Amino acid sequence: MWPLPEGYDYPRNHWYVAAWSDELNNETPLERWILGEPVALYRDETGNAVALEGRCPHRNYPLAKSPIRGSALECGYHGFTFDSDGQCIRIPSQTSIPSVCRVKSYPLVEKWKWVWIWTGNPDEADESLIPDHDEIAITADGWLAEQSLTHLLGARPQLLHENLTDISHLAFLHAGTVGTEAVAAAEVEISENGRFMRGARFIPDETLTDFFSEVLDYDGPVDRFVAIDFYAPSIHVALESFRKPGTDEPIGEFRVHHVVTPATKDSTNYFVAWSRTFARENQAVTDTMNKVFAMAIDQDIDAAESIEKIIRSMETPKELLVKADEHSIRCRRWMAKLIGAEAQ
Amino acid sequence: MWPLPEGYDYPRNHWYVAAWSDELNNETPLERWILGEPVALYRDETGNAVALEGRCPHRNYPLAKSPIRGSALECGYHGFTFDSDGQCIRIPSQTSIPSVCRVKSYPLVEKWKWVWIWTGNPDEADESLIPDHDEIAITADGWLAEQSLTHLLGARPQLLHENLTDISHLAFLHAGTVGTEAVAAAEVEISENGRFMRGARFIPDETLTDFFSEVLDYDGPVDRFVAIDFYAPSIHVALESFRKPGTDEPIGEFRVHHVVTPATKDSTNYFVAWSRTFARENQAVTDTMNKVFAMAIDQDIDAAESIEKIIRSMETPKELLVKADEHSIRCRRWMAKLIGAEAQ
Amino acid sequence: MWPLPEGYDYPRNHWYVAAWSDELNNETPLERWILGEPVALYRDETGNAVALEGRCPHRNYPLAKSPIRGSALECGYHGFTFDSDGQCIRIPSQTSIPSVCRVKSYPLVEKWKWVWIWTGNPDEADESLIPDHDEIAITADGWLAEQSLTHLLGARPQLLHENLTDISHLAFLHAGTVGTEAVAAAEVEISENGRFMRGARFIPDETLTDFFSEVLDYDGPVDRFVAIDFYAPSIHVALESFRKPGTDEPIGEFRVHHVVTPATKDSTNYFVAWSRTFARENQAVTDTMNKVFAMAIDQDIDAAESIEKIIRSMETPKELLVKADEHSIRCRRWMAKLIGAEAQ
Repeated sequence: MWPLPEGYDYPRNHWYVAAWSDELNNETPLERWILGEPVALYRDETGNAVALEGRCPHRNYPLAKSPIRGSALECGYHGFTFDSDGQCIRIPSQTSIPSVCRVKSYPLVEKWKWVWIWTGNPDEADESLIPDHDEIAITADGWLAEQSLTHLLGARPQLLHENLTDISHLAFLHAGTVGTEAVAAAEVEISENGRFMRGARFIPDETLTDFFSEVLDYDGPVDRFVAIDFYAPSIHVALESFRKPGTDEPIGEFRVHHVVTPATKDSTNYFVAWSRTFARENQAVTDTMNKVFAMAIDQDIDAAESIEKIIRSMETPKELLVKADEHSIRCRRWMAKLIGAEAQ
Repeated sequence: MWPLPEGYDYPRNHWYVAAWSDELNNETPLERWILGEPVALYRDETGNAVALEGRCPHRNYPLAKSPIRGSALECGYHGFTFDSDGQCIRIPSQTSIPSVCRVKSYPLVEKWKWVWIWTGNPDEADESLIPDHDEIAITADGWLAEQSLTHLLGARPQLLHENLTDISHLAFLHAGTVGTEAVAAAEVEISENGRFMRGARFIPDETLTDFFSEVLDYDGPVDRFVAIDFYAPSIHVALESFRKPGTDEPIGEFRVHHVVTPATKDSTNYFVAWSRTFARENQAVTDTMNKVFAMAIDQDIDAAESIEKIIRSMETPKELLVKADEHSIRCRRWMAKLIGAEAQ
Repeated sequence: MWPLPEGYDYPRNHWYVAAWSDELNNETPLERWILGEPVALYRDETGNAVALEGRCPHRNYPLAKSPIRGSALECGYHGFTFDSDGQCIRIPSQTSIPSVCRVKSYPLVEKWKWVWIWTGNPDEADESLIPDHDEIAITADGWLAEQSLTHLLGARPQLLHENLTDISHLAFLHAGTVGTEAVAAAEVEISENGRFMRGARFIPDETLTDFFSEVLDYDGPVDRFVAIDFYAPSIHVALESFRKPGTDEPIGEFRVHHVVTPATKDSTNYFVAWSRTFARENQAVTDTMNKVFAMAIDQDIDAAESIEKIIRSMETPKELLVKADEHSIRCRRWMAKLIGAEAQ
């Protein structure tokens, strides 16, 4: 789907975030559409997270609308019961159970407050492929990490990726809160290391917005370093680092973790977390950051959904790329390559 | 449309229920979509029910939004007037009326509180093809029949048929009110007699749910006989008969009449009536049964609409059939045969 | 799109009304979809009306959701800035601006309270092609003109054209307010003069409806002259002239200006103005006319949207034309001819 090549939607053989840990329990399953399919998420009797294909193979009833029985899901329609490994363990009308009567059980890994799901071939679900939570400053020493937002967007996933890989938009879409014009004017340096592709900007003598002044408790110019690290296909980590001008003396750093999980071809689950090094005991700073990020994310969602509407009105969507789009385009090519590799 | 073969939607040369008698009057037409077309339903000056094609042939204005003039409908747009036989009797701008200026007038039969419509070739509208209202215990001696519910479902008609022909779902979707697990476990016996196809279950020593205990005013185990009689393509009659265990001594019987009238290919009119032999003078029992059946029907509608959503997300819908689905499958084949016969 | 030939939607090389003058300002752009595209409408620093293509060529963000900077629009996403002539004058991340980086700037003409937009080749935007505002009795001496209504219809534009070119519908859809049965019965005389195509009806000894009696402050029979002048493709002027029977002595005249601007293939912008010769200082008459016309226009919108729904349900839409449809059909042919000429 545009702007990816025709027929390219999302790569499957990867880890995505399916949910927050606190969304799952042993009482009521959570339904979340992931990569075009309904998934039923819950906890078994011992508290382990479980993700089953959310569609009973018998009559297509949503398993996420079905009751949990112990560690299994009992289809709310005719009672076919599926254990946490996906195997059917009961068909109420008969004693024998055909071995083909099963649903997919997705490999899951809980890390920090996230439930990571492997949507591809289960045999290849290698936990080490999940981005390092120390590296992304979620679990790293000296950082406070915060679970922040959950949204379902009416826009194709790639539009959110493109938003995140061109943070010159901070200067305009989020002017006054997290963006200044200097962000857009700064040169972008792109680098990659096999794990993520970084687009970085260095802005010397940047003037802090009121929001940054308040949460950093700092006035006056700073050297600002802004980067987006894209861990394809699922997470963008925005880095912000503020230092005293011309020095290495830190004022503070934060990360925003933008998690993109395709719901369907044209709708997108969006989870946001963030972490910071400064004022870690200060709840007022946490509240302010949550409030401002919520506003900014609403602006991003509105942008993506507005663009989706315009794109759908065009017989042949198009765009006009400039030099600053290089990070976006390289990340898009990466996505296309991942999808293309699976198509073969 | 799946699960019927591609291009198979509904058979036309049949009687369907179009409305309840009390929905029709000589004041304001009722619009109901039936088999993909809008229909205008009203009463003529003498009180006879009339069903005209609800689309003015002139400019496609809905005749059901048009005023009734005597026994005719006057199109609310340009005044073309159609008598109850469908013939245009007035074109305000001219005196001659082309004979092709007419709408379909559907044969109707009012039986009990139902208005039956014949959607096929009018010459073949044989009233004797309507299910016998004594046989289905609507007008039979010793039965009290109740007009109950009217719904429009956002799901293809066949999903409702499939729901009704596998009542093992009573044990799960309607657990605690009308279903126990014994219903799902019981063997199904299928029989047919040219009028209907029955799927029957006999459950000896069944424990009554609180609902059944209350309305039957009976405690203790019963022999329960449950059946669904499908009179293709329009009505399913659910039979419930309770007897003292091991005897022929009746405790009570009721029927639920599930009437399925396709609105369009993917939406469905659903009318529900029911009748009973017991406590016929007791309004509290009537109220309780109406309340519990309304809850159960809401569960069925939610199931059908949820399944519809999942099916639409699948490029190639599929299902996994088991032995207990035999009644469903035979009824589905019957539907396909009726449609196929008309396609030739 | 039916009832125009397949693939025929709207002619582009024409003037349409884009907005009312008072909808445009230098604070916030107005987004209006016109002929399938989003348009951003605003005023430059000197107060001139501007219409830019409402889609940033960079990333398809809606320019109508973007801030006005002086006389330019600054894309709210990444800051690409477009002057009122459509040329990009700033890309925040670079100093050079590719000449292809531009949006369409539509020729506009403000006349009376309307902003006329030229949607075709700008070189051919000849202001003299706009209907003469004296001729249509908007700016003519002795007439009071009133800005009245703005709507967006969920129906294809041609359905509104067809509504307006058969005013026999006044007798039915608007019975009792602006229509009597005599309107439908009267013969239609069609004439054309290169500017507009007229369908005219003369009704001698017409009985005034209560509404007409009230606003004209006149009782008793009148000679009524009713016409629709269609200035393809954008405006229908309804003429109503009342005289003392058998004389040339005027009682009063009014015009209703029905402005049809396609939003997309299947949705339509509808602007309504009207003017009158009588009681020009009387605000109560203005209020009554606004109220009654608002009711009538709501009836027209409901008709168009109801017909749209029925048409969409038909695999092959059809209609049954009669003699009174001649004006409609000739106007439709005119529309098809305008579209066809551009297709070559």
